[in-house]
Amino acid sequence: MTLLFDLDPRLAADTLPVAELALSRVLLMNDRRWPWLILVPRRAGATELTDLDAPERAALIEEAAACAGALRRISGAPKTNVATLGNVVRQFHLHVVARQEGDPNWPGPVWGHGAREPYSEGEAEMLTTALREALA
Amino acid sequence: MTLLFDLDPRLAADTLPVAELALSRVLLMNDRRWPWLILVPRRAGATELTDLDAPERAALIEEAAACAGALRRISGAPKTNVATLGNVVRQFHLHVVARQEGDPNWPGPVWGHGAREPYSEGEAEMLTTALREALA
Repeated sequence: MTLLFDLDPRLAADTLPVAELALSRVLLMNDRRWPWLILVPRRAGATELTDLDAPERAALIEEAAACAGALRRISGAPKTNVATLGNVVRQFHLHVVARQEGDPNWPGPVWGHGAREPYSEGEAEMLTTALREALA
Repeated sequence: MTLLFDLDPRLAADTLPVAELALSRVLLMNDRRWPWLILVPRRAGATELTDLDAPERAALIEEAAACAGALRRISGAPKTNVATLGNVVRQFHLHVVARQEGDPNWPGPVWGHGAREPYSEGEAEMLTTALREALA
C-alpha cells in the first residue's frame, strides 16, 4: 500500500503555496519578519532526513540551494539559515530563511521567536510571483 | 592560489575532535545538554551552502545522515535537528543535534539557549570513542 502525500494542516495554515519542484513542495512562510521558504518532500510518512534515500537527499539539498539563491536575490539579505527541526510538526520539512544583521532576533534563530506577522495580500502576491520566476 | 583550510578558532574552542569524513571534519559540541555534532567541510572560504558545488552538497548531506544515525543509536534520542546557520561563526558548518521531549528548551531550538555545560573528561572520552566506532 502506498501512503498518499498530504501536507500537514499546520504547515498549510502557516504558509502560502509557491511551487512544486522535482521532489519538494515549496511554501512561503506567511511571516513578513523574514523571507522564509519551507520545502516539503512529497514522501508520505517521512519525519527524519534518514527517512529519505540518498538520491532524495541529494535532490533536497539542490532544491534548498536553489531556494537559498532565489531568496537572496529577491530579498537582498546575504545570509541563509537552512534547517530541518520538526520538533513540533513531525512531517519532514526543511526551512530556508534569508537573514541579515538587525533582523528580528539576529543573530539568534527564527524558530519560536515572537508572533508571526502575516503579509498583506498585495505583498504576498508580489513575493510569491517573484519566487516562482526565480525558481522556474 | 589555494586557500588553506583552517578551523575557525571559536568552533575549535567549543568542540572536541571526533573524525575526518571524506568531506567534513566532525566535531562534538562540548555541551552535555544535547548530543550534538558539527560538520565542517574542508573547503576554505565557504560560508553558504551555495559556496559548495553539487557533489560536495550531496556528500555533506550523506555525512549529515550518517552522523544523525550515529547520534540516535548512541544517545537513544529519537529526533534530529540538522541546520546550517552561521550567523555568528561565518565558516560554513552544519549542526546535527539529537533531541528528545523534555530536553533543555524542547521543542524550541538549541542555539542561543542558556550556557554551555562541558562534559567531564571521562564522558567526553567515552562519547567520542563511541561516535568514532559508529562512524567508522
